[in-house]
Amino acid sequence: MHGIYLVTDQTLCLGRPLASIVADAVRAGIACVQLREKTASTRKFLNQALALKPVLASAGIPLIINDRVDIALAAGADGVHLGQSDMPYDAARRLMGSNAIIGLSVETWADVEAAQNLDVAYLGVSPVFATPTKTDTRSPWGLDGLARIRAYSRHSLVAIGGLNAANAKEIIRAGADAVAVVSAICSAEDPFTAARNLVHCFDSSTDKET
Amino acid sequence: MHGIYLVTDQTLCLGRPLASIVADAVRAGIACVQLREKTASTRKFLNQALALKPVLASAGIPLIINDRVDIALAAGADGVHLGQSDMPYDAARRLMGSNAIIGLSVETWADVEAAQNLDVAYLGVSPVFATPTKTDTRSPWGLDGLARIRAYSRHSLVAIGGLNAANAKEIIRAGADAVAVVSAICSAEDPFTAARNLVHCFDSSTDKET
Repeated sequence: MHGIYLVTDQTLCLGRPLASIVADAVRAGIACVQLREKTASTRKFLNQALALKPVLASAGIPLIINDRVDIALAAGADGVHLGQSDMPYDAARRLMGSNAIIGLSVETWADVEAAQNLDVAYLGVSPVFATPTKTDTRSPWGLDGLARIRAYSRHSLVAIGGLNAANAKEIIRAGADAVAVVSAICSAEDPFTAARNLVHCFDSSTDKET
Repeated sequence: MHGIYLVTDQTLCLGRPLASIVADAVRAGIACVQLREKTASTRKFLNQALALKPVLASAGIPLIINDRVDIALAAGADGVHLGQSDMPYDAARRLMGSNAIIGLSVETWADVEAAQNLDVAYLGVSPVFATPTKTDTRSPWGLDGLARIRAYSRHSLVAIGGLNAANAKEIIRAGADAVAVVSAICSAEDPFTAARNLVHCFDSSTDKET
């Protein structure tokens, strides 16, 4: 996982269709989309996933489903993102198969240690900074926490929580392989430009750092 | 599907563990348990299903999961119950396999007609009477509606909504193959006795009617 990772939130799209925001972000060069629906019915969640799938597939961008293995399987998504209150990794891997992308949020150091032996595609370092988008998470890792995980973990790290073009550079410097954003794209006045700025920021940071 | 069908609701168990109420109902001779969790996390829902599975399996009683195909697959449950806002039947059948029990709620006559060509194990006729337990459903079918579905449908009918020992007999007379209850067992002072009364009521009604 490498680049800008869009996590969707329909409620933060300012009334605009999620599909159009995702399409803008895809045009701007993001690396991955995680579809997150915390209140939608299964039917609506599935329909949203089915609508996004061809757009992302034709752009070669993986579609990751938040939490719901059933939605991922029914929509032919590329993977699932698991939080610590979601299905355990082993059960999800068994259902999703060996080729699926499985990401895992880590909120405590114990989570980071436990993930070391799991065949996850990435760890979601959550949250790096305090954010109003997610209210059910632990205290923020901060840049120090992110750097500490980077030093310890064998996994790719996707940083999430309060991230935007203004702080992406320091996040990458602290060890993030990908920068996940929600409102920085979903709530942007111009989602395409916002996504493009993030992508440029990511690309220039990694060019200079590596 | 034939007999008393318990639909769980942890919030209606008056603080008692769901597992103990299910165990009481199993001892009393119920025919089926549908685990329904509308607010629990995936992890908690799955753990509840895993906890109930051996109790039910050893009694030869199917465990049906409400809505969530992923929970059903991960827990090795016998089937899923689908509402009209849940995963479409075809997608659920594909994921669950040909042996799974798939039940489907019908809330309108169009639902009843559409279900005629589906290989569902039963239709959940929902709600028969108005009930505070489910607040997201259409207007009640009533006994007339239930009888009309009985005359038309090729499927087994599980009646749900406001059902208890006082009205089970007329429900069966109107054509129900099974009587689903929530609070009549979950909220009963003595769930075992409540379930046993329902089972006796069902058995005596079907003995006399057939």
